[in-house]
Amino acid sequence: MVNKPSKPTDSLIGNDNWNIQLDRNGRLKHFLTVEGLGSEILTSILDTAESFANVNEQRVKKVPILRGKTIVNLFFEASTRTRTTFELAAKRLSADILNINISTSATTKGESLLDTLQNLQAMLCDMFIVRHSDSGAAHFIASHVAPHISVINAGDGWHAHPTQAMLDMFTIRRFKGDFGNLRVAIVGDLLHSRVARSQIHALNTLNTGDVRVIAPRTLVPNDIEDMGVKVYHDLAKGVKDADVIIMLRLQKERMQGALLPSEHEYYSEYGLTEDKLKAAKDDAIVMHPGPINRGVEIESSVADGPRSVILNQVTYGIAVRMAIMSMVLGREPEAEISGEEQ
Amino acid sequence: MVNKPSKPTDSLIGNDNWNIQLDRNGRLKHFLTVEGLGSEILTSILDTAESFANVNEQRVKKVPILRGKTIVNLFFEASTRTRTTFELAAKRLSADILNINISTSATTKGESLLDTLQNLQAMLCDMFIVRHSDSGAAHFIASHVAPHISVINAGDGWHAHPTQAMLDMFTIRRFKGDFGNLRVAIVGDLLHSRVARSQIHALNTLNTGDVRVIAPRTLVPNDIEDMGVKVYHDLAKGVKDADVIIMLRLQKERMQGALLPSEHEYYSEYGLTEDKLKAAKDDAIVMHPGPINRGVEIESSVADGPRSVILNQVTYGIAVRMAIMSMVLGREPEAEISGEEQ
Amino acid sequence: MVNKPSKPTDSLIGNDNWNIQLDRNGRLKHFLTVEGLGSEILTSILDTAESFANVNEQRVKKVPILRGKTIVNLFFEASTRTRTTFELAAKRLSADILNINISTSATTKGESLLDTLQNLQAMLCDMFIVRHSDSGAAHFIASHVAPHISVINAGDGWHAHPTQAMLDMFTIRRFKGDFGNLRVAIVGDLLHSRVARSQIHALNTLNTGDVRVIAPRTLVPNDIEDMGVKVYHDLAKGVKDADVIIMLRLQKERMQGALLPSEHEYYSEYGLTEDKLKAAKDDAIVMHPGPINRGVEIESSVADGPRSVILNQVTYGIAVRMAIMSMVLGREPEAEISGEEQ
Repeated sequence: MVNKPSKPTDSLIGNDNWNIQLDRNGRLKHFLTVEGLGSEILTSILDTAESFANVNEQRVKKVPILRGKTIVNLFFEASTRTRTTFELAAKRLSADILNINISTSATTKGESLLDTLQNLQAMLCDMFIVRHSDSGAAHFIASHVAPHISVINAGDGWHAHPTQAMLDMFTIRRFKGDFGNLRVAIVGDLLHSRVARSQIHALNTLNTGDVRVIAPRTLVPNDIEDMGVKVYHDLAKGVKDADVIIMLRLQKERMQGALLPSEHEYYSEYGLTEDKLKAAKDDAIVMHPGPINRGVEIESSVADGPRSVILNQVTYGIAVRMAIMSMVLGREPEAEISGEEQ
Repeated sequence: MVNKPSKPTDSLIGNDNWNIQLDRNGRLKHFLTVEGLGSEILTSILDTAESFANVNEQRVKKVPILRGKTIVNLFFEASTRTRTTFELAAKRLSADILNINISTSATTKGESLLDTLQNLQAMLCDMFIVRHSDSGAAHFIASHVAPHISVINAGDGWHAHPTQAMLDMFTIRRFKGDFGNLRVAIVGDLLHSRVARSQIHALNTLNTGDVRVIAPRTLVPNDIEDMGVKVYHDLAKGVKDADVIIMLRLQKERMQGALLPSEHEYYSEYGLTEDKLKAAKDDAIVMHPGPINRGVEIESSVADGPRSVILNQVTYGIAVRMAIMSMVLGREPEAEISGEEQ
Repeated sequence: MVNKPSKPTDSLIGNDNWNIQLDRNGRLKHFLTVEGLGSEILTSILDTAESFANVNEQRVKKVPILRGKTIVNLFFEASTRTRTTFELAAKRLSADILNINISTSATTKGESLLDTLQNLQAMLCDMFIVRHSDSGAAHFIASHVAPHISVINAGDGWHAHPTQAMLDMFTIRRFKGDFGNLRVAIVGDLLHSRVARSQIHALNTLNTGDVRVIAPRTLVPNDIEDMGVKVYHDLAKGVKDADVIIMLRLQKERMQGALLPSEHEYYSEYGLTEDKLKAAKDDAIVMHPGPINRGVEIESSVADGPRSVILNQVTYGIAVRMAIMSMVLGREPEAEISGEEQ
């Protein structure tokens, strides 16, 4: 039943088999990446999240949609912030949630990852929220779980989060409406940010008018222009007349070698200050996935200023995660019964 | 929006702005200290706790009062016992609870305390239970959160707990009735015990007939007599005819320098033994906030004896915390809507 | 009230006072061991578990049987897997559950075990799930708690679990029906496995036709034949015509001295391979408590093969734990009221 697994690698991500995310009726079964999902699915996530955004504003922020379901936060690397958002989303859907830190538990008894997964699914858990330092880990797990289990990627490898990309889309739509006329600028370390790649896919799928990336030459992936974006190395030019500016976190711990001269120099060229923000439209919004490095990629007065929607992103993040969790588990049971899933 | 915060200091506690605890209608919004609260508020807490004491004795120890509310145990120092009491109280009120240990999470990514708070409130959490080693930390946090958030102090600095003081008052009232005719003796390290200070404020506010403190000279704060208590350095004289004896825990880890000759000598002079207890009234009760240092501040046979109400304090602690949590979150919503809060 | 406790020892287990597990009406109050329990109690556990096995297969895997009850996972040694099964069982019974890791909490403040227990019961907790490295620890705790508390042994000393033995019985009954005609072979390190001892007691009580144990001479307890089992040192002979083969985990960390030449040699003589499995009946089932040491006590293709019911054991483990938890807490309240319990 279990073959010796090959180590998950990026090659898993490169293939075209992303339809593992959909069941035979085209409904979302796993949520591993925004790549390969069409605009109807993405729009459906955003529309569903609207209803949960309203739930969160009610006095009783709880709906019984996933009552009796068991959701596992399966975290192979620590992230209190991300774990918390999923835990809150699960609780507000009335699900039961288990927090399992894998590095400190089963593996100390020499149990393999696949044995751990099989045990959890034998306990009739319904969903794994996976956070892992290896790119492709969530996809690998989704490929090996039983048909009744859904997997959500909470970040794999270079800080990738498809749920982060979707909450960004939700935030843009809430503040700016239709994507067609928008100019969106993504600023920062694109090389080490899979979230940027996911954002670009989502923005393209949602037919955004103009998507630009702004970064030093050393922090731009070679193939980025193939994704249909314009590349700028000058912040002032790149944010000119932008409707939306998405700042990326400088992942200091992921920087390899001498890609970057110094934090100070980075800030002077690519840090978003009040002065540099003036080049954007008057009603431009400023976004950041958090946590913020104040004075490194963004000036405090911008992060806390009237253009900033950074805390709105956090609020919407709960609603978007509730939407995705309810969609993958809330599918019609007939799909399972008729056995059409792999 | 966020100015660089000054480090929380005792000066925060010294000012007269304790009305931050009340909303404009005079109802409890935060619970940071008993100082500055009138007898109606304190009595209202005790009366509300009576109803929860009954809930706890029922077969189903759960009420739906805070269903859909999200409560965060925000612990900057570890305390399983205290965390557990708040977690139980929250669960019995049907709230969702998150346990967050700050020292091991966000700060490792260099996020500031205020950013962490703002993120949690953006997730639409409703209450922070704060435990911190700095005096004034809970007050500092309450001064900086959004209007919809309530803060409860679960101990700041020298082991201060206003909820501990209130459960002590509840215990005294349950066993002894009216405070007016009581003689209450507080014994031990008053210098390092903010709970004693809170107890004295609460006892005064509730018009206790006679409040005494008993301690070695080196462990009495200079200004204690300004609080209207009598100071004794002799245990036998101090507990003479007492109705209530509150033993303080000897905070060995907080003792600085040579304030104390030895545990053995402390015990021989200030430890409550069966023999010394004879000086109190025949029906005197013995209290202790726990955990007990047996043979240091109290003899085991007293701690476990018929006069001891130490375990009753633990039981009532859940009811009192349920009362305070339901009061700060259960206020009428109109208060928020009409915007009268700062 | 609390005398200085003697260290829990095996002598506690040797006495005949196992009726501490039953109340005066003969109903299960604690579940510490299968020894001393009659076939009606064991059968009642299995029958109750049947109904919960069905609950677990429903879309809403939750019943309100223990709503408002507070269950404490009191773990003195880490075991994510076992803790998780009890946590899931508690949540599916709608109980509130607290996870307390004793080694890192109260004892750091010098509080004794009995003080910790008394505090938790003063908080009106209803059940302690106890995991401890000392044999007899759960029994010791059950002897000292208040009458309203039930204790369940989640493993004490040499990896003993009575709940594990009962889920094994449940698995056998589900796949093989009546015990009377069965030949059951238990293979492995019997010396360090209290679970094997509990399995033998349960199999005997349920009138199993033929119970055998198979192990190297150095890993067989001296008194094992007194329990009415046949001892084999040859795997091929021992599993001949078996209906059920229970493999034990090789507790490498518990092996003392030179009881075992090498893992490789152990595997070649006592590891269950596809080849050796041929000696058993064609429809024999293979069981293992997990986690599996692949290539040490069992071949991967057997563990994952069609005869293996190892993952079924995990699934049934939730149902069996739900059954035991509901039985010990779900007794008629009159029993308590009339005060007949010690």
